[in-house]
Amino acid sequence: MDYKILTTDGTARRGVMQTKRGIIHTPSFMTVGTHGTVKAMSPDELMGMGAEIILGNTYHLYLRPGMDVISRLGGLHKFMNWDMPILTDSGGFQVFSLSAFRKIEKSGVHFRSHLDGSLHFIGPREAMKIQGILGSDIAMVFDECIPYPATHEYASRSVELTTEWARQCKTAQNDAQALFGIIQGGMFKDLRKRSTEDIVSIGFDGYAVGGVSVGETKEEMHEIIYFNGPLLPFEKPRYLMGIGDFGDMLKAVDAGFDMFDCIMPTRNARHGTLFTSTGKTSIKREDFKYDSGPLDPDCDCYTCRTFSRGYLRHLFLSREILSMRLNTLHNLHFYQTFFRNMRSAIEKGAFGEFKRKWEGVFG
Amino acid sequence: MDYKILTTDGTARRGVMQTKRGIIHTPSFMTVGTHGTVKAMSPDELMGMGAEIILGNTYHLYLRPGMDVISRLGGLHKFMNWDMPILTDSGGFQVFSLSAFRKIEKSGVHFRSHLDGSLHFIGPREAMKIQGILGSDIAMVFDECIPYPATHEYASRSVELTTEWARQCKTAQNDAQALFGIIQGGMFKDLRKRSTEDIVSIGFDGYAVGGVSVGETKEEMHEIIYFNGPLLPFEKPRYLMGIGDFGDMLKAVDAGFDMFDCIMPTRNARHGTLFTSTGKTSIKREDFKYDSGPLDPDCDCYTCRTFSRGYLRHLFLSREILSMRLNTLHNLHFYQTFFRNMRSAIEKGAFGEFKRKWEGVFG
Repeated sequence: MDYKILTTDGTARRGVMQTKRGIIHTPSFMTVGTHGTVKAMSPDELMGMGAEIILGNTYHLYLRPGMDVISRLGGLHKFMNWDMPILTDSGGFQVFSLSAFRKIEKSGVHFRSHLDGSLHFIGPREAMKIQGILGSDIAMVFDECIPYPATHEYASRSVELTTEWARQCKTAQNDAQALFGIIQGGMFKDLRKRSTEDIVSIGFDGYAVGGVSVGETKEEMHEIIYFNGPLLPFEKPRYLMGIGDFGDMLKAVDAGFDMFDCIMPTRNARHGTLFTSTGKTSIKREDFKYDSGPLDPDCDCYTCRTFSRGYLRHLFLSREILSMRLNTLHNLHFYQTFFRNMRSAIEKGAFGEFKRKWEGVFG
Repeated sequence: MDYKILTTDGTARRGVMQTKRGIIHTPSFMTVGTHGTVKAMSPDELMGMGAEIILGNTYHLYLRPGMDVISRLGGLHKFMNWDMPILTDSGGFQVFSLSAFRKIEKSGVHFRSHLDGSLHFIGPREAMKIQGILGSDIAMVFDECIPYPATHEYASRSVELTTEWARQCKTAQNDAQALFGIIQGGMFKDLRKRSTEDIVSIGFDGYAVGGVSVGETKEEMHEIIYFNGPLLPFEKPRYLMGIGDFGDMLKAVDAGFDMFDCIMPTRNARHGTLFTSTGKTSIKREDFKYDSGPLDPDCDCYTCRTFSRGYLRHLFLSREILSMRLNTLHNLHFYQTFFRNMRSAIEKGAFGEFKRKWEGVFG
C-alpha cells in the first residue's frame, strides 16, 4: 500500500492511498458495514455516493456467518459484492465492548458471543488469521481497549500487552494486506507517548489512535487527539478510530488525522436524526408535517432530490423500511460530500475557514 | 379510462387499459403500497421491474398520515413520487378486517383505528371523498366484505347494502377518476349472480369480485372464481381482489379476470419466502449456507444478478434491512416477469400450456 501526501494546510493533510482495489482520497470517512452490509444500503448506492472504502467488523463476521461461510464464498469482498477497499478492525474493541464475559490472557481473550453465549478465543494470531480469510485490504492489529476511567497502572500494563500483541500481528502479516498499528494509553499522555514509540518502532503501514470516545469528556478527547496526532509518523496514514462527530473530526483533521469511521451517520439515520447543511435535525419534527420542501435544499442525494420532508416524516412515523433507506442514504451522502469539500478546502489552503464554518453549524 | 381487449385465448384475455398517467397491460399484477410506499422498495425500483400500477390502501392512508397531509402535499402520486397509475381500495375491507370495533349503519361504518383506538366513520360518500383527495386513477366503491362463514340471510342483506353503497359512490364519482364496482355475495351463487346484476346495472368503468380468500376452502374459492368471472361484462376490466397465489391467479385468468393485487410477494419476501422458477423456497435453507449460486438462475433481477444464496441467507439470519430489500425486489420482479410471460403466452395462444407448466411448479 502506497500513501502520498499531496498537500498540507497547516497541520491538516490531503493525501492519496493506493491499494490494489482502488484509491482512497484522504481525509476519508469509512462507512461501517458490520455484518457484511452497510445497514439499509446496497453496494451500488455506496458507490454512487462516492464511498471509496468501507469498514467490516471482524468480531461480528467471525460470529456470524462465521469464517467457514465467508471462506467458502470467496472472502468478504465477493461475499458482499464490494470490489473496492475494505478495512477490517481486529475485533478487539467489540470483544471488550459487546461481550458479556471476557478473560484476558497474555495470548489473547476468552469471551462469550453476545449472540448465543458460546465461548470463543481471539488473540493476535487469531485476529490476523480471521482478517486474512476476510481478505480485507487493510487489517488492524489486535489491541486491548481499556475502560474509562482506568488507573495509570492498569493502562500501563495494557499498553505493554497491546505492544506485545502488535508485534505478534506484525509477524503474522501476509503480503496481500496492509497492517495498521494501534496506539492505546487511555487518557495518560506519558502512556500515549510510550505506546506511540513502541508501536512505531515495530513499523506498520499506517497508525491508528484507539481508546477514545470511551466515556471521557469532550475536553479529554480533544486533548488526546491534539496530543497523539502529531506524534504519529508524518508520512504514514493516521486513523482516529470510532469518531464520527463533525466537531471532533474537524479537530482531528486539524491535528493531522487522515481516516475516520463511525456508525453515527447510519445509526442516527435509522433513528430519524439527519445531518444537513444547516445542522442536525429530527425528521419527526412537527413543523415538517406539511412541508413539501426537500430535507436539505443544498443536498443532491436521491432522498433530497425526490422526496419531501412531509413524506420522510410520514415514512419514519410509519416505521417503513424505505424511511431507513432514504435517511441512511442521505446521511452517508452528507458525510461523503462533507469530506469531499474538506479535501478541496485543504487543497485550496482554506481548511481553517472550512473548520470554522462547520463548527458553527454543528457546534 | 379506455379498456381494449387485444386478444383472447380461450376465456383468458390480453388487454390494455389507457389512463392519463399511463398504460396498464393486462393481465396485470398490482403491487400493494399500503402506507404510501411499497414496503422496502423505492419508486425507481418499482419502475425498473416494469410495474405499471400500484395499489394504495385508503384505510391506512386515511389514518396515517391523514388526508390533511396528503392533500397539502399534492395527493398520493406526488406525496410518494409515483407518477404512474394508482388504484385505491375503498377502505371497506380493512374496516372489516383490521378494526377491533365496528358498527354498520345504512350510511356507512363506525370503527376504531387499529393504531390508537380513535373513533371514525367511513361510508360511500366518505370513501369517495378520501379517494378523491388521494387522487388515484382508479377508485373502488365502498363495500361490505362479510365474514366467512355467513348465513344466506346475512349475505343477502349485505348484497343489498353493498349495492346501495355502490349507487351512492357512483353518484359521487368525479370525472378525473375511474370507478370500479365490487361484487359480493359470499359463497352463494344466487347472491353472486344477483350482486353482479345489481352492480352492472349501475354501470362502472370496471368490475371487481370481492369477498374471496376470507377463510373459505380453495375449492369454494375456485368455484366462485369460475362462476363469477364469466358473469362480468366482457368489455370491461375484471379485477379479482386480494388474490396473489399463482395457482389461484392462473385459474382466475382462465376464468377471464384481468387484474390482481396481493401482499403475498412483499410480505413473504420480508419473511424469507421467495418465489423462483422452480417453486417456492425459504432463504433460511441449511443447504444454502455455502451456496455461491444465484437464488434463481433464470431470474435477471438485481438480487439474482449480484448476490449468492449464501449471502442472502446470511442477511436474512442477521435480520439486515438489505435482506428485506433484496428479497422484496426479487419477489416483485418474479411476479412482474410471470405476468409479462403470461401476457405473451395469451398472445401466442399458449395460455393453456403456460397454465399447466406453472401449476406444476407451484401446485
